[in-house]
Amino acid sequence: MTKAVVLLSGGLDSATVLAEAKAAGFECYALSFDYGQRHTVELDAARRVARATGVADHVISRIDLRRFGGSALTSDLDVPKGRELDHMAEGIPITYVPARNTVFLSFALAWAETLPASDIFIGINAVDFSGYPDCRPEFLRAFEEMANLATRLGTEGEARIKIRAPLMSMNKAQIITRGVELGVDYALTSTCYDPSEQGSPCGACDACLLRAKGFADAGFADPLLG
Amino acid sequence: MTKAVVLLSGGLDSATVLAEAKAAGFECYALSFDYGQRHTVELDAARRVARATGVADHVISRIDLRRFGGSALTSDLDVPKGRELDHMAEGIPITYVPARNTVFLSFALAWAETLPASDIFIGINAVDFSGYPDCRPEFLRAFEEMANLATRLGTEGEARIKIRAPLMSMNKAQIITRGVELGVDYALTSTCYDPSEQGSPCGACDACLLRAKGFADAGFADPLLG
Repeated sequence: MTKAVVLLSGGLDSATVLAEAKAAGFECYALSFDYGQRHTVELDAARRVARATGVADHVISRIDLRRFGGSALTSDLDVPKGRELDHMAEGIPITYVPARNTVFLSFALAWAETLPASDIFIGINAVDFSGYPDCRPEFLRAFEEMANLATRLGTEGEARIKIRAPLMSMNKAQIITRGVELGVDYALTSTCYDPSEQGSPCGACDACLLRAKGFADAGFADPLLG
Repeated sequence: MTKAVVLLSGGLDSATVLAEAKAAGFECYALSFDYGQRHTVELDAARRVARATGVADHVISRIDLRRFGGSALTSDLDVPKGRELDHMAEGIPITYVPARNTVFLSFALAWAETLPASDIFIGINAVDFSGYPDCRPEFLRAFEEMANLATRLGTEGEARIKIRAPLMSMNKAQIITRGVELGVDYALTSTCYDPSEQGSPCGACDACLLRAKGFADAGFADPLLG
């Protein structure tokens, strides 16, 4: 069985990507990060999703991006609430964590090299990349190019390292529809940027609003709210 | 004053690079890693070098690359001793840590973006890149390309992010000669892959042998042994 490293935040997108990787026949190694995010309830979600989907291993790497500052997700900055969906796409949002996907993919690359696994899955999609520079296809292509020069696997290995983002061109409704087809239990996931300590979503941050619109457009009820 | 992030391992090369960055007029932000390496004495060396050189800030990031395995520097694998210099260049050595420079540069990029600093210095050189894939110029160019697509700084900023490796085309003797010119105190540095608990070099690993040859070729005595 071919191995793949799958970045798993515990959110809706990464849960769907993990299901895609499984469906494609990969033996999955899930990688999550405790990176000083305010909402550690997403790590509980990642554990639940990994267990429910069935992975060969699940690593939670502890790294501290707070020391570098600069994001509402790792500091006391206020997470924006109740924004119009049209306004979310303007500029780079305050919830952007500097170089986060670069750091996450670098760790995935380190693990991929030792497994070895030539496939790395990440749940980036068309909605996310409206604002985050490190969610765009050209970023992923550049990372893949670099990864193949950076490693023994890419330099001496027979297979080229591939960064796979199967959701890239899908909107939230399409992702949810695909996930339901694959049997993803979205009740296990966590999406909110600012959940309660018990893990209840706030219902008003960008992430909650995009999730709600996605379920509405797809014609499904969100099991998290059921 | 223009800011720069400087990767500082506490070794001979990174101490020289830090001095180069200072000499070039940068306000320096030194970044070291506690990455589960066997020889944490190099972190003490990094602290001494940062203090002696004078930096605006020095961060030691704790990340655990041991969980991914695969290197003599982070595991119980034996560090090779007493090898002929000619044989060191054959293949990728057992001391290679998978994706290490990619991970280190990703953290430097995160910090650079929040400072902001558009210059990142790394002490890669011609001797190192004989065996490590992530010490080659083409790797650095690919990382730089990726970095400018990954970040707000690279996307919206006025300055292009630059990965600077001023030692790239220098051998150890040239690096030491340049460092002596710049006033680097090599007594503060630590190079050995397998030092004693007190920090004394083993004198027989690849790193010790390359350092000894460098000082001999440059015509200086190594103050660490004095």
